[in-house]
Amino acid sequence: MSIKTPTVKLSTTNDEMPLVGMGMWKVPNEVCANTVYEAIKAGFRMFDSSSDYGNEKESGEGLRRALDEGLVKREELFIVSKLWNTYKQPEQAEIQIRRQLQDWQTEYFDLLIMSIAPRMSVTVDPAVSYPPGWFNAEGKIELDRAPLHKTWAAMEKLVSLKLAKNIGVCNFGGQLLADLMTYAEIPPAVCQIESHAYLRQQDLVELCEAYGIRIMAFSTFGPARYVLPRRRFVWLELGVPSATQVDSLLTHPVITKIAEAHHVTTGQVLLRWFTQRNIVVIPKTIKPERMVENLKSSTFDLTEEDIEAINGLDKGFRMGNTKVFDPRLAIYA
Amino acid sequence: MSIKTPTVKLSTTNDEMPLVGMGMWKVPNEVCANTVYEAIKAGFRMFDSSSDYGNEKESGEGLRRALDEGLVKREELFIVSKLWNTYKQPEQAEIQIRRQLQDWQTEYFDLLIMSIAPRMSVTVDPAVSYPPGWFNAEGKIELDRAPLHKTWAAMEKLVSLKLAKNIGVCNFGGQLLADLMTYAEIPPAVCQIESHAYLRQQDLVELCEAYGIRIMAFSTFGPARYVLPRRRFVWLELGVPSATQVDSLLTHPVITKIAEAHHVTTGQVLLRWFTQRNIVVIPKTIKPERMVENLKSSTFDLTEEDIEAINGLDKGFRMGNTKVFDPRLAIYA
Repeated sequence: MSIKTPTVKLSTTNDEMPLVGMGMWKVPNEVCANTVYEAIKAGFRMFDSSSDYGNEKESGEGLRRALDEGLVKREELFIVSKLWNTYKQPEQAEIQIRRQLQDWQTEYFDLLIMSIAPRMSVTVDPAVSYPPGWFNAEGKIELDRAPLHKTWAAMEKLVSLKLAKNIGVCNFGGQLLADLMTYAEIPPAVCQIESHAYLRQQDLVELCEAYGIRIMAFSTFGPARYVLPRRRFVWLELGVPSATQVDSLLTHPVITKIAEAHHVTTGQVLLRWFTQRNIVVIPKTIKPERMVENLKSSTFDLTEEDIEAINGLDKGFRMGNTKVFDPRLAIYA
Repeated sequence: MSIKTPTVKLSTTNDEMPLVGMGMWKVPNEVCANTVYEAIKAGFRMFDSSSDYGNEKESGEGLRRALDEGLVKREELFIVSKLWNTYKQPEQAEIQIRRQLQDWQTEYFDLLIMSIAPRMSVTVDPAVSYPPGWFNAEGKIELDRAPLHKTWAAMEKLVSLKLAKNIGVCNFGGQLLADLMTYAEIPPAVCQIESHAYLRQQDLVELCEAYGIRIMAFSTFGPARYVLPRRRFVWLELGVPSATQVDSLLTHPVITKIAEAHHVTTGQVLLRWFTQRNIVVIPKTIKPERMVENLKSSTFDLTEEDIEAINGLDKGFRMGNTKVFDPRLAIYA
């Protein structure tokens, strides 16, 4: 018996989006297909993916198995993928997304996000490197000129081609959102951002609310994920050693106290702090017991005092900023 | 004998821009012509203006008098004006800037800045209200759809029409700058931002350096200007009462100590902290003795230790954010 998670409506299409999904970043290839399959079995209906995570093919295999076994129908799922920075030239977008759909063995994405750093438009030939990463054949970052208004038009075209049902943005602050709203024919349904108790981003949350844009938060457990040794793409290498200098939120006394009061885990408290505000979360895990824990994170309610106490931890502490690659790639300057 | 201030070269045109200019915001109409005239006499060669300051006509009268008396030649001056938020529709820009040039009684601006909040594109009919301010005839903010890439193209056209020698932006953070650099045919020569010892904006400064864009700082004395009673446009009304909650920088012990060591005023220390880093400042004053003080602020050098001590006051404390008008107008979210 799988666990149901609540959904929120997207203002653009009225599609229902699950409040809790599975993040696929850093899910190892060898366990990826099984992770997707087990996640669906446990009750996950949403997956947050990207070509750059290098595991979309395996994700598609897990999805196919779950569909073939009749665990779920495609229309009950909400598959999220991203147009990576290196494919921002309008003519590249369709070619690339068709490849990602093929990897996922599906006809459409429920949500396609324009990834990751708004300013990123590095050029990497997929023939040279796939997943593309950040660097060209010479190991260098190569900036090309892909204006966001042109890339966004390419995203809109993918909607008209029915390759994506909804489109969204990633790491857009207020300035870029405001500009986007002046030229978007299809406004973004979702804005995906780093957020955790140390980085509440309340102004941005309110701005998105005013625009009718859903917030989808990543790194919701805070610095924990940054301090573990990782197999491939390690944010610590992106010049955020400060992530090791703050206390883990998973063992933070404020969170621990709240978790004990509700007889839940600290991870569940950290997730509920978002979902209770209708903010979508995508915690990553490959452990079945953690999957259940994450899915059940919406089965209790924090009190107003709990929420205020967590709000009080905010210190504008941001972990993900790509400025170490090149000052011109500073997402937040 | 007028005081000479150092200049910096603009990377786009190699034009020389004075490091210290006169800010015209809030210069009262009745003393404005005389202020410009006296400022030129004292040695000022740069004026930072805008239609919204409501005193460009009087500024032009002061300029005309100085030119007629032969105090200075037009080509020795550096006149800065701005395209206000309400004129961001491409077809409005040329009409409006011709009007501002007429007010200034000059043929061209040395620098024209796309003002003020990047997202602002409110519509105010100049026939209803001039200077236009923020509100329409019904006293409401009305957002229109003026994409920045179209407004920037209109700015570039003003260069080809020789109505502006250089063009720049205002309040652009890293995300917008990066996008602008992907579509600009003429890159911005200058980015004007709020900066003071409580808001150093070092990431943005480094980003602009990487792009070859000069930083022009406003509110360089910090919260002082916000806590005084004002005649018209008061930032305090923009929901920044916090500006009253921090210590004035002009009497701050760290600044006072440095000023005493160099036998200068605290205001001169605050300005030199910028100009020594080749950041342009535009302090406003109508007092002749203050004009001289500001002009002379580049005649001494701070030590490395002085600069570090002032850097240490940074607390990311921003005063100017228009989000109180409308969440969708939050410049920084």
